[in-house]
Amino acid sequence: MPPENLDSFHAVIPAGGAGTRLWPLSRAARPKFLLDLDGSGRSLLQQTWDRLNDLIPAERIHVVTGTAHAAAIREQLPELTSVFVEPSPRDSMPAIGLAAAVIEAAHPGAIIGSFAADHVIDDQVSFAEAIGQAVAVARSGLVTTIGITPAGPSTAFGYIQSGDQLTIDGADSARAVTSFVEKPDAATAAAYVASGSYSWNGGMFVTRTDAILGHLARLQPGLHEGLTRIAAAWTTADRQDVLDATWPGLTKIAIDHAIAEPVALEGGMAVVPGEFTWDDVGDFAALQDVGAASSPETIWVDASGLAISEDGTTIAVVGLENVIVVRTDDALLVVARDHAQQVKDVVAEIKRRQRDDLV
Amino acid sequence: MPPENLDSFHAVIPAGGAGTRLWPLSRAARPKFLLDLDGSGRSLLQQTWDRLNDLIPAERIHVVTGTAHAAAIREQLPELTSVFVEPSPRDSMPAIGLAAAVIEAAHPGAIIGSFAADHVIDDQVSFAEAIGQAVAVARSGLVTTIGITPAGPSTAFGYIQSGDQLTIDGADSARAVTSFVEKPDAATAAAYVASGSYSWNGGMFVTRTDAILGHLARLQPGLHEGLTRIAAAWTTADRQDVLDATWPGLTKIAIDHAIAEPVALEGGMAVVPGEFTWDDVGDFAALQDVGAASSPETIWVDASGLAISEDGTTIAVVGLENVIVVRTDDALLVVARDHAQQVKDVVAEIKRRQRDDLV
Repeated sequence: MPPENLDSFHAVIPAGGAGTRLWPLSRAARPKFLLDLDGSGRSLLQQTWDRLNDLIPAERIHVVTGTAHAAAIREQLPELTSVFVEPSPRDSMPAIGLAAAVIEAAHPGAIIGSFAADHVIDDQVSFAEAIGQAVAVARSGLVTTIGITPAGPSTAFGYIQSGDQLTIDGADSARAVTSFVEKPDAATAAAYVASGSYSWNGGMFVTRTDAILGHLARLQPGLHEGLTRIAAAWTTADRQDVLDATWPGLTKIAIDHAIAEPVALEGGMAVVPGEFTWDDVGDFAALQDVGAASSPETIWVDASGLAISEDGTTIAVVGLENVIVVRTDDALLVVARDHAQQVKDVVAEIKRRQRDDLV
Repeated sequence: MPPENLDSFHAVIPAGGAGTRLWPLSRAARPKFLLDLDGSGRSLLQQTWDRLNDLIPAERIHVVTGTAHAAAIREQLPELTSVFVEPSPRDSMPAIGLAAAVIEAAHPGAIIGSFAADHVIDDQVSFAEAIGQAVAVARSGLVTTIGITPAGPSTAFGYIQSGDQLTIDGADSARAVTSFVEKPDAATAAAYVASGSYSWNGGMFVTRTDAILGHLARLQPGLHEGLTRIAAAWTTADRQDVLDATWPGLTKIAIDHAIAEPVALEGGMAVVPGEFTWDDVGDFAALQDVGAASSPETIWVDASGLAISEDGTTIAVVGLENVIVVRTDDALLVVARDHAQQVKDVVAEIKRRQRDDLV
C-alpha cells in the first residue's frame, strides 16, 4: 500500500560502519548490515531494501558504500541498479550529498530519503504511513525527519524535540523540530518521554534534493562545491577521475551536524511520527531485544541470556543470568548483558595486538 | 630419596572415571586422567606415574583400567609392564582387590598402595615421607591410609578422624583411624579443621596384600572368592576366560565401603599424615585452584576467571567476575565458578539428548 505521492521519491541507503560492538559476529570484512542478525533469513541491508522496494521501484533505490563492500552488496541485492562507491569514508553528509547532487541532476526537484542499512524496523504499514507524511512535508521544502515514538526512556539514542503543529496536506501529524539532542542520561530520558514532545532520532531524513543542496551551499559551501563538481562529471567519462581527485578533500561530517541541527535552529526542519518498532541494533543487548534467538542446541543450567553458535557447536551455560555468548569459528565472546557496550573495548584490544585477522 | 623400606612395595593405579564435571575437556573417550589439565606437559596419569616411579621401579607399578583406555594408557606410559584390564567397571574394590590377589600370588606378603590416576599432588619430598610411614605401618598388618593435612575447611572431600597415637618403628606420626566421614557441610568442615584431628580422605590406601585379602574374605566373601578364582588363573592360558566369566558377577563396591569404613570401626585402620598439597581436581574451580592457566590470548575487560581455548581461538570475556570458559573444537562451556559442580547436569542433558558424540 504505497502512499499516492511517492512518484518522485528516491531512497538512499548509506551502507557503512563495522558495528564493533557486535564483534565477533560483525567484522571489518563482514559488517553488521550484511549479516542476518535477527534470524529472519535476510540481512539487515536486505530487510532495508525490502521495506523500501515495497514502496518504490528498485530503480529509485540507491546504495552508498565503500569499495570494500560494493561487490557483497550487489550480491545480496541482485535488483540494485544504482551504487555510489565512495573512494574513502567521509561520514554521512558527503555520502548522502553525493546521491542528492547526482539525483537532482537527473531528476530536478526529486525527493530523497536516507535510511541506514543496519537498522531494524517492524510494522511496514506504519513505516509506509510515516514515509507518506514525510514526503508530503518535504515537498513543501522543509527538511523532514521521522521521529520514532519511544518504546521507553532509552539512553542509547539521540532525541528530537518537536514544537508547533504544521499545516500541510497529507501530513496531519507533522510538527516543527525545536532541536536535536544527544543521548541523554537516564533521568533526562525519562523526562523526555514523559513530556510527550520528544521522539527517538533514527537518522531518517527526507528532503527535496534542491532544498538540501541549497542548505549545503549556504552552510558547507566547500562540501557543496566538491559534490557539485563530482555530480557534473557523473555521466561523463571523467566520473572516476573527478571523484578520486575531489573526494579526499571533502569535509568529513555527519548529516546531523551539517544540516539537521543548524537547519532546525533556523526553523527549517520538520518531524513526522514513526509509530513502528525501531532499533539500531547497536550492541548485543539490542540484538537480544529485537528478537535474536539462541542456537537451538544451547544447554542452559540455572542460566539465561543469548547464545549464538555460528559454527553449529553446542554451547552450555551454567549459573549465569543475562549473559551473552557468541561463538564464531575463530573467536569467542562472553559478555554480561549490562556490559554489552564494552565489547568495543575488545575490538580496540585486538587492534592493539595487531590481530587484523580478528577485526 | 626413596625411603629404605620400599623393597616389597607395589603401587596400584586405578585409572577410571570420566570426570563429567570437567566437560567439555574430559570425555568418555578422553577421561580426566589422560589430560594435561594443569599445563605441566604431563597428563594426570603421567604425573601419578612419575611420583611413584621416583620411589619404586616401573615393574612394581600396576594400572587397573577398562578396555576402552588400555591402549591410550600404554601409549602415555611406555615403561608400564603391568596392566589389569577390567572387562567392565565394578568400582574400586574389585579393581584393587584383583591387583592385590595377583600380586599376593607372585609376592606373598607384599605391600600395595592404591593411588588414583587423576589427582594432583605437589611436594614429592612430603609424598615420599608419607609413603615411607604408611608402608612401615602396613607392614604391621594395619590397613593404612594417608590423611591429607587440610589446606582449609573444604566441603568437597570426605574426612578421616584420627584417634590414638600408634607406636610403630619408622612411623612416628601414625594414629588409629576412628572413622571415615562423608563430605561435610561448611560449619562441620570448619569444626573438623579446627579440632586438628581430621584430615582429608584422598583415597590412598596402603596395605599388606594378605591383610586386605583377609579382610575381604571376612567382609565380602563372594567378592573374595571371585577374585581368588581369577588370580589363580592369571598366569595360565585360562586367564581371559575366567576373568570374563567371573568379573560380571563381582559386587560393585568402593574400597571405602568394602574395607576402610568397617575395618576402621574394628580398630584395624591407621592413618599417617600427608603434608603435601593435594587435590582431586573434581571440577573447574578445583582446576583453577591447582594452577591451570588461561590461554595467553584471552582478552579480559572488567572480567576475571579461567578461559581455556583448546582449539587456539581467541576468547574475550567482558563484565563477568569468576567465570570459567572452556572451548573445544566441538563444544563450549561457560560456567560461574561457584556453580562448577553443576557441570555434571550439562553432561546429563547431553546424554538425555543422545548426543553421544559430545559425551
